[in-house]
Amino acid sequence: MRAAVISGVGQVEVGTVADPTPGRRDVVVRVSACGLCGTDLHILQGEFAPTLPVVPGHEFAGEVVELGADVTELAVGDRVAVDPSLYCFECRQCRNGRNNLCERWAAIGVTTSGGAAEYAVAPAANCVRLPEHVRTEDAALIEPLSCAVRGYDVLRARLASSVLIYGSGTMGLMMLQLGKLTGAASIDVVDLSAARLATAEKLGCSATATAAEELDRPGGWDVVVDATGNANAIQDGLGRVAKGGTFLQFGVTDYAARVTIEPYRIYNEEITITGSMAVLHSFERAAALFATGVVDPEVFISDRLPLDRYAEALDQFGRGQGRKIQVLP
Amino acid sequence: MRAAVISGVGQVEVGTVADPTPGRRDVVVRVSACGLCGTDLHILQGEFAPTLPVVPGHEFAGEVVELGADVTELAVGDRVAVDPSLYCFECRQCRNGRNNLCERWAAIGVTTSGGAAEYAVAPAANCVRLPEHVRTEDAALIEPLSCAVRGYDVLRARLASSVLIYGSGTMGLMMLQLGKLTGAASIDVVDLSAARLATAEKLGCSATATAAEELDRPGGWDVVVDATGNANAIQDGLGRVAKGGTFLQFGVTDYAARVTIEPYRIYNEEITITGSMAVLHSFERAAALFATGVVDPEVFISDRLPLDRYAEALDQFGRGQGRKIQVLP
Amino acid sequence: MRAAVISGVGQVEVGTVADPTPGRRDVVVRVSACGLCGTDLHILQGEFAPTLPVVPGHEFAGEVVELGADVTELAVGDRVAVDPSLYCFECRQCRNGRNNLCERWAAIGVTTSGGAAEYAVAPAANCVRLPEHVRTEDAALIEPLSCAVRGYDVLRARLASSVLIYGSGTMGLMMLQLGKLTGAASIDVVDLSAARLATAEKLGCSATATAAEELDRPGGWDVVVDATGNANAIQDGLGRVAKGGTFLQFGVTDYAARVTIEPYRIYNEEITITGSMAVLHSFERAAALFATGVVDPEVFISDRLPLDRYAEALDQFGRGQGRKIQVLP
Amino acid sequence: MRAAVISGVGQVEVGTVADPTPGRRDVVVRVSACGLCGTDLHILQGEFAPTLPVVPGHEFAGEVVELGADVTELAVGDRVAVDPSLYCFECRQCRNGRNNLCERWAAIGVTTSGGAAEYAVAPAANCVRLPEHVRTEDAALIEPLSCAVRGYDVLRARLASSVLIYGSGTMGLMMLQLGKLTGAASIDVVDLSAARLATAEKLGCSATATAAEELDRPGGWDVVVDATGNANAIQDGLGRVAKGGTFLQFGVTDYAARVTIEPYRIYNEEITITGSMAVLHSFERAAALFATGVVDPEVFISDRLPLDRYAEALDQFGRGQGRKIQVLP
Ligand SMILES: NC(=O)c1ccc[n+]([C@@H]2O[C@H](COP(=O)([O-])OP(=O)(O)OC[C@H]3O[C@@H](n4cnc5c(N)ncnc54)[C@H](OP(=O)(O)O)[C@@H]3O)[C@@H](O)[C@H]2O)c1
Ligand SMILES: NC(=O)c1ccc[n+]([C@@H]2O[C@H](COP(=O)([O-])OP(=O)(O)OC[C@H]3O[C@@H](n4cnc5c(N)ncnc54)[C@H](OP(=O)(O)O)[C@@H]3O)[C@@H](O)[C@H]2O)c1
Ligand SMILES: NC(=O)c1ccc[n+]([C@@H]2O[C@H](COP(=O)([O-])OP(=O)(O)OC[C@H]3O[C@@H](n4cnc5c(N)ncnc54)[C@H](OP(=O)(O)O)[C@@H]3O)[C@@H](O)[C@H]2O)c1
Ligand SMILES: NC(=O)c1ccc[n+]([C@@H]2O[C@H](COP(=O)([O-])OP(=O)(O)OC[C@H]3O[C@@H](n4cnc5c(N)ncnc54)[C@H](OP(=O)(O)O)[C@@H]3O)[C@@H](O)[C@H]2O)c1
Ligand SMILES: [Zn+2]
Ligand SMILES: [Zn+2]
Ligand SMILES: [Zn+2]
Ligand SMILES: [Zn+2]
Repeated sequence: MRAAVISGVGQVEVGTVADPTPGRRDVVVRVSACGLCGTDLHILQGEFAPTLPVVPGHEFAGEVVELGADVTELAVGDRVAVDPSLYCFECRQCRNGRNNLCERWAAIGVTTSGGAAEYAVAPAANCVRLPEHVRTEDAALIEPLSCAVRGYDVLRARLASSVLIYGSGTMGLMMLQLGKLTGAASIDVVDLSAARLATAEKLGCSATATAAEELDRPGGWDVVVDATGNANAIQDGLGRVAKGGTFLQFGVTDYAARVTIEPYRIYNEEITITGSMAVLHSFERAAALFATGVVDPEVFISDRLPLDRYAEALDQFGRGQGRKIQVLP
Repeated sequence: MRAAVISGVGQVEVGTVADPTPGRRDVVVRVSACGLCGTDLHILQGEFAPTLPVVPGHEFAGEVVELGADVTELAVGDRVAVDPSLYCFECRQCRNGRNNLCERWAAIGVTTSGGAAEYAVAPAANCVRLPEHVRTEDAALIEPLSCAVRGYDVLRARLASSVLIYGSGTMGLMMLQLGKLTGAASIDVVDLSAARLATAEKLGCSATATAAEELDRPGGWDVVVDATGNANAIQDGLGRVAKGGTFLQFGVTDYAARVTIEPYRIYNEEITITGSMAVLHSFERAAALFATGVVDPEVFISDRLPLDRYAEALDQFGRGQGRKIQVLP
Repeated sequence: MRAAVISGVGQVEVGTVADPTPGRRDVVVRVSACGLCGTDLHILQGEFAPTLPVVPGHEFAGEVVELGADVTELAVGDRVAVDPSLYCFECRQCRNGRNNLCERWAAIGVTTSGGAAEYAVAPAANCVRLPEHVRTEDAALIEPLSCAVRGYDVLRARLASSVLIYGSGTMGLMMLQLGKLTGAASIDVVDLSAARLATAEKLGCSATATAAEELDRPGGWDVVVDATGNANAIQDGLGRVAKGGTFLQFGVTDYAARVTIEPYRIYNEEITITGSMAVLHSFERAAALFATGVVDPEVFISDRLPLDRYAEALDQFGRGQGRKIQVLP
Repeated sequence: MRAAVISGVGQVEVGTVADPTPGRRDVVVRVSACGLCGTDLHILQGEFAPTLPVVPGHEFAGEVVELGADVTELAVGDRVAVDPSLYCFECRQCRNGRNNLCERWAAIGVTTSGGAAEYAVAPAANCVRLPEHVRTEDAALIEPLSCAVRGYDVLRARLASSVLIYGSGTMGLMMLQLGKLTGAASIDVVDLSAARLATAEKLGCSATATAAEELDRPGGWDVVVDATGNANAIQDGLGRVAKGGTFLQFGVTDYAARVTIEPYRIYNEEITITGSMAVLHSFERAAALFATGVVDPEVFISDRLPLDRYAEALDQFGRGQGRKIQVLP
């Protein structure tokens, strides 16, 4: 089959690889669309340390075309979104219910062959059937949405919170959509780029700015979310949490990034800083929300390229152009 | 009556002031003992910005000697511990259930005359009657204990957590005692002074060290508590939180203190940093726990001085000698 | 001034009473509209045991026309919604942060003169200023909305829950609107009356039925809410909670109502049954949500009658006709 | 090997069965001791519907004597306690983090051969190594303790709660011990039998009674736990929950048991009724707590019988004599 392959640091090409065969509890999925995200770039930069070569792609949906010997709950022809998480279910973290912190962390498209290919293998239990009105390609958005759901699970914000989100890319906008869905009284969005903010406005946020001080809210926000991964944004955001409020580190920074906090304020204003990492008990729920239309694919997917142009797609993503970029095999 | 008076920055003396008179819902308490704490030093340094002169002392217990016109729930002769918090019940924070963040923050012994005196006035609702087996003087420990209860309310730690506490002063030791009472599987304590650690050992912690690296726990601790207010301790402790764990800022630093955090870890290991400020819905509960003997006054109270030696007591406290120092009018 | 007066059991009339005068921290509000609710009927039936006569009405909004001596945060002319809760701030429940369970429970319109009158007195801290785009009369809906917010605070439901609501009256519909706002994946509504269900459909629920079994969901719902106060509905609903799910008792039944539960299921399926009572830390937040348009007054207010027809309005409410009925002085 | 076998309804004998062989990720454990519990009786009565014959026993500890091909984290000779839970990790509940509600529920000693035998097979990930000072036989108490830990995870009680426990058998006493470890201000215990209450007193509860009304606490208890499985106890206990308090259904009743609740009180006093089922993310934590000595084996284990007397042991347990009864192969 045709597949994108990251063969070494900085090396990515589309070529022919062996067709995948399913294990007993796996299925083979013919990929309809596969989204790109920061993790793919990290792999290309040799960072998330999987064994190269690897077929990337952890955000995908498609049609079941082959069943492993012990699979009865799915049928050939089923259209599914795939949770890429491959938890070990054995380590301290898994046994403690925090599988996303699994000590043997593994994922389709990171440590095993992924969805930037004609076919991909996935455990049957990771496949969520799509309702009729959801288009298969669009369902590749469920994976990033399931990360955003985890973010709000960590926050457990109360109704009527004031929310400030840094970043108006795919994830910032998903945090905006879910913010509305968790009953925020207001959601303001900050991004360096006015063009990106236009999308936030289109989706219906309360205010936007290219710098948070323009928003003029001296008491701060109940919930501040970083969805940039940028240390400047984080540093700025930490100072804008209201008394008793929470900062969520959702963006992924460089390992080396550092920011400064004020312990007096943490104590005196009972500020909480917390983080959200990938998917935990949130994939099926994201699929259910996606089916309600919370994320409009026409707004979120900016580019759909053929699989053969994977390298170009990744390059464009790296340059920060567009929102969600998909390859279609 | 005799009372300690902080009359200006750096100025403290014991003198004669007018006897207090109760408002309609207040009582007058004859003070049995009043503990000293960091807040008293801050007032002396002109920091918590109350109007000087003020009679300090927010940790006290005594006997009710006079009732305001509308008080029926207490009787003259009742022995009580006093919650010094004077919430406004009207501001945004109070109406939101976070009275300890009250925008008109006030407290007996900080913004109004306190317990370092023969008599003090307190709202009847702030007085908790003591059971027979609790000595009145000892009950002055209930106020700091109620802060520690708030700390564990914020933590809501699960049974069988591993806990690391920085600081083996009064508050670190109370956090140790309550840590046992919240089902920690282990509680290690770090302090610069071996002498102070001896008390932690006497109370039954799992391990002590003058530097946390000696404890050799590369995976870190589920819960790390700063009970020093020292930026070095905080910086060290932030690096020792286990995956999925929580850091509690309980110690009070200078306004100017700054520490550094790693956003990548906050995200990737879902670390939480949070804070606990004074007393919230925890005074009566601290009194109930105190009655069960969770805090042994003979261990916790290191010095009992007559009220007339208040200045000396405060000076000794400032030099970090002893644990809880009380003055007895 | 003109006011409705419940003067004895079953006796209600509109008459002339003395104009109210504010306490030092109170304001006088000229009432724009006052909603009726089950509590008013209970008072008429002599049940909530206030001292009669009383001017009823705890759901109201209006314009500030007079300030108590110590009020500075409001100005004459301010348009406000009024939280009727009069907590004591002194009892065990209040000091524990559960003011809605106050042992000296009191409320404007129940234990003191209420809003079914030309003027009403309220503590300044209970008044929430309205933004320009909110009509004063409509803001009388904030009080019931703040009860619904409390309901969801108790539930703390996760995103993507399936919800079943019994009752499509004012409160059931508010629970529906807030259910959407807390990210429910689906919300089904049951009511005996097809006419009432039409409104739920108009507001956008996932399904309606006059009996829950028609909805054919054998696994049950994650969240089941009673908003009827009817024992049959409650009994039916308890059996429809999914494994690990929660039943919220929001409706107010007769004291004498009894329903049956299965302890084996509570244990084996870890079912939770819980309740929500009036307003707690939720009034300002309901006002903020109301300002976002979560509750459309044109849908929720079915009848607006002049104050003089208060008795008729209450009678109509008692006969279960319409949704929210308001009187306008 | 020798093993107890439940071969049909009401039929239990000790006989010789084939020695077990481990799967690739399993180990074989030589059983040191195996505790009996209500589940064993249910199996004997044909209730938990496993395929008979089965070797019972889900509470056991022993020594690793053989490793599956892919096991590296354990070594022959390791002494371990065994979590009997066999989650599927694939169903809706498992993927939602509620493995104890697994739709394909399975457990060692219920659906597969258990510990009432010389040897038993267990997944390596289910084995927790024992520290040196813990005796292997005693560690069979970790499994029931891990159920009690789950109970308190569900409760998430705050420090200084008042607790009332019905039942002073093994589980009631474990709930007592953990109640102390979660900072209860007081724990009262009710049991029909004065002899059983003597043990609760020995362990240090605040009060005991053969009927809760003797305890004379009209305001009720913050937390009420049923650890009897008896409908009379449950009915009584439901009426004794304080305002804002919680009832935990921990005991296992007959399927047919029914009790009555008052919806008005659930609403008006915001009462919560909830349940706790078996083990969830709590086995390792129970092992850690057990190592601290929270449960004294000399108090908890009333009888140690040779495996050959398994039928007699089960019969004695059925008659309610003693506390934890163990068989030792
Ligand atoms: N926690 C998780 O589970 C999870 C899951 C998925 C993704 N993520 C992370 O979430 C972050 C966002 O992902 P994405 O796909 O939305 O990325 P993206 O499309 O690159 O969006 C990031 C946005 O942040 C803006 N930005 C950068 N620096 C800023 C600053 N100082 N102030 C304000 N805005 C700033 C960028 O503006 P410009 O384009 O003008 O630079 C861009 O619009 C990434 O770090 C990603 O790795 C986390
Ligand atoms: N959150 C609240 O509500 C609340 C309430 C009360 C008090 N507090 C705060 O809690 C903190 C502790 O109070 P306390 O009365 O226990 O004070 P304390 O008696 O002065 O104890 C502090 C201890 O920390 C030790 N320490 C200082 N720097 C350290 C470091 N780098 N590493 C390890 N240990 C170090 C000190 O050792 P040496 O003596 O050798 O310097 C001392 O033993 C203070 O900051 C206080 O203001 C907070
Ligand atoms: N928890 C709180 O803080 C709080 C606050 C406000 C109100 N409440 C309570 O909430 C409840 C609802 O208030 P509301 O103003 O919405 O009352 P409502 O207008 O009378 O609505 C109740 C609805 O429930 C329906 N109903 C009655 N029995 C039913 C059954 N067996 N199955 C299905 N539907 C049934 C009624 O239908 P029909 O009209 O056809 O009978 C009616 O449409 C009341 O009990 C009220 O006291 C609670
Ligand atoms: N939730 C879970 O995960 C879990 C785990 C393990 C066990 N359990 C359940 O927990 C319950 C207790 O287990 P156990 O091993 O401790 O059982 P046990 O040894 O039989 O203890 C039950 C105790 O309750 C007493 N009792 C019975 N009816 C009572 C009443 N009306 N009022 C007061 N006390 C009463 C019994 O007294 P007499 O002996 O005088 O009758 C006995 O002392 C059982 O139902 C068991 O199935 C639940
Ligand atoms: Zn794992
Ligand atoms: Zn306040
Ligand atoms: Zn009260
Ligand atoms: Zn399962």
